[in-house]
Amino acid sequence: MIPDLKEVKAAAKRTGPHTHNTPVLTSSTIDRMLNATVYFKCENFQRGGSFKIRGAINAISQLTEDERARGVITHSSGNFAGALALAANALNTKAYIVMPSNAPSVKKDAVAGYGAQIIECDPTLQSRESITKMHQKKTGATFIHPSNDMNVILGHSSAVMELAKEAEQLDVVIAPVGGGGLLAGTAIAVNHLHYYIETIGAEPFGADDAYLSLKTGKIQPCINPKTIADGLLTQLGDQNFPIIQKLVSKIIRVEESEIIHAMKFIWERMKIVIEPSSAVAVAAMFRNINEFKKRKVGVILSGGNVDLANLPF
Amino acid sequence: MIPDLKEVKAAAKRTGPHTHNTPVLTSSTIDRMLNATVYFKCENFQRGGSFKIRGAINAISQLTEDERARGVITHSSGNFAGALALAANALNTKAYIVMPSNAPSVKKDAVAGYGAQIIECDPTLQSRESITKMHQKKTGATFIHPSNDMNVILGHSSAVMELAKEAEQLDVVIAPVGGGGLLAGTAIAVNHLHYYIETIGAEPFGADDAYLSLKTGKIQPCINPKTIADGLLTQLGDQNFPIIQKLVSKIIRVEESEIIHAMKFIWERMKIVIEPSSAVAVAAMFRNINEFKKRKVGVILSGGNVDLANLPF
Repeated sequence: MIPDLKEVKAAAKRTGPHTHNTPVLTSSTIDRMLNATVYFKCENFQRGGSFKIRGAINAISQLTEDERARGVITHSSGNFAGALALAANALNTKAYIVMPSNAPSVKKDAVAGYGAQIIECDPTLQSRESITKMHQKKTGATFIHPSNDMNVILGHSSAVMELAKEAEQLDVVIAPVGGGGLLAGTAIAVNHLHYYIETIGAEPFGADDAYLSLKTGKIQPCINPKTIADGLLTQLGDQNFPIIQKLVSKIIRVEESEIIHAMKFIWERMKIVIEPSSAVAVAAMFRNINEFKKRKVGVILSGGNVDLANLPF
Repeated sequence: MIPDLKEVKAAAKRTGPHTHNTPVLTSSTIDRMLNATVYFKCENFQRGGSFKIRGAINAISQLTEDERARGVITHSSGNFAGALALAANALNTKAYIVMPSNAPSVKKDAVAGYGAQIIECDPTLQSRESITKMHQKKTGATFIHPSNDMNVILGHSSAVMELAKEAEQLDVVIAPVGGGGLLAGTAIAVNHLHYYIETIGAEPFGADDAYLSLKTGKIQPCINPKTIADGLLTQLGDQNFPIIQKLVSKIIRVEESEIIHAMKFIWERMKIVIEPSSAVAVAAMFRNINEFKKRKVGVILSGGNVDLANLPF
């Protein structure tokens, strides 16, 4: 069930040429504050501003020539829209992105700028799915799910593989959880690095479907999520949930005020721009400070796409 | 008159153990936009959030044991206050920082947090100078000027020495100019790297005393400066002006709107927090785009200390 190390390495080899080996930053202030050693994997510096291109590259590069000629399709108004467009562009593949008509024009412009074709839908899940199916049928494009696709998950593993090269002997890695692709990919890689390294998920209380899914042993829907972490509004899927169940030791939930505080803290002290979803992982570390004492902690800063005209502080 | 390469290297050796060798970042978006290769030296990631600690370390480390026992003193409400406090702390020296009573409490807290003693004065240049002189007399502390001190200037040279190791064969280096310490230090190092590399200063139209000083051949005061770049409000001094006259090829002036645009652009695209003074150097490059075409350009991002509650966008 869990992909083996060979598959993880193969995915990293596929993504490597088309993604940045993003910097791993440290902060002596934070280390002193927590009495820990923290390595921040800066996927906010990744191409397209988030880790998502890793999975997109890995998924597209495993299509047959014939499939690639017909293109790929997804529905997303978030980071995966840009990531799939960018990855398709890098791999000379046609991309169709189904986006709600009310998506911010800056996001539409970015997707169009990467050469993808935007297909508008109504801002409902039903419209997104039916329009996607229709266009998939019409074009023969392969649907790539943003998080519940094993190739996407394996692509995301590459972030931790890089992190481990710069930060040896990690004790624990924290990643935010939304759709579950990043957390599952992280857990797979961590598991192969060394059996004793822990993988922890971080989630807002206002969208704690993954926490509840682990607790109930069944995928829970993400109903009316209320959080500033706009990358974490989706629910787990059948591909990533079993991995998370098996390999993730726990999910730490954080309040909205903790997310905003962590975000501001990282901007002010580390001088880097992270989006609220990234700050969720930082907030989890700040919340459970005793748990991380004297440990070597890897934190996946998942992305840095924020609207500067609309900051929470 | 111009310090020789041996002195530049000695300063870099002194600052090295107490400062970060800050990352040099690149952006394929910006390179494509400008048709140039741009290396950003990220002094926003420096200890204390700006390049200023380089000069402070170099100046303090050249005091005699006796002088160090009596401490150092400066007046500043900006980045040099924190930098001198931090440097003094690193070198086990007492620091007295004269700060206006209306300085933001966050800045006072930082200075006090580094163990320096704050001496309050009225928010006028006259009060700053007289209070400083009084305390200098009382304590026997050595006065260290934020920008018009050859050891401070030489300390600042170390940023370009590091930059040159990561970005070979630069054609031009751009640095913002306020008091002139960074620009003079940059020019000295650049001059020793290779005679053909150009050093360019960047300055707001609203505080263009350095531009006017070069034009008139005489240090011009910075009267009623009007700019968001709060690190560039001071004027050149007799130590750095002759160096700037001899080694800086020109000063590019930029509008306030260009500074804000450049700042926002760097935050959004590069996901790093830079302060308006850093953005002035970026804005100069954007303004004179033809001048930098097909060249290898070094840009000193001088600092990242901004008030997130008070952004211009």
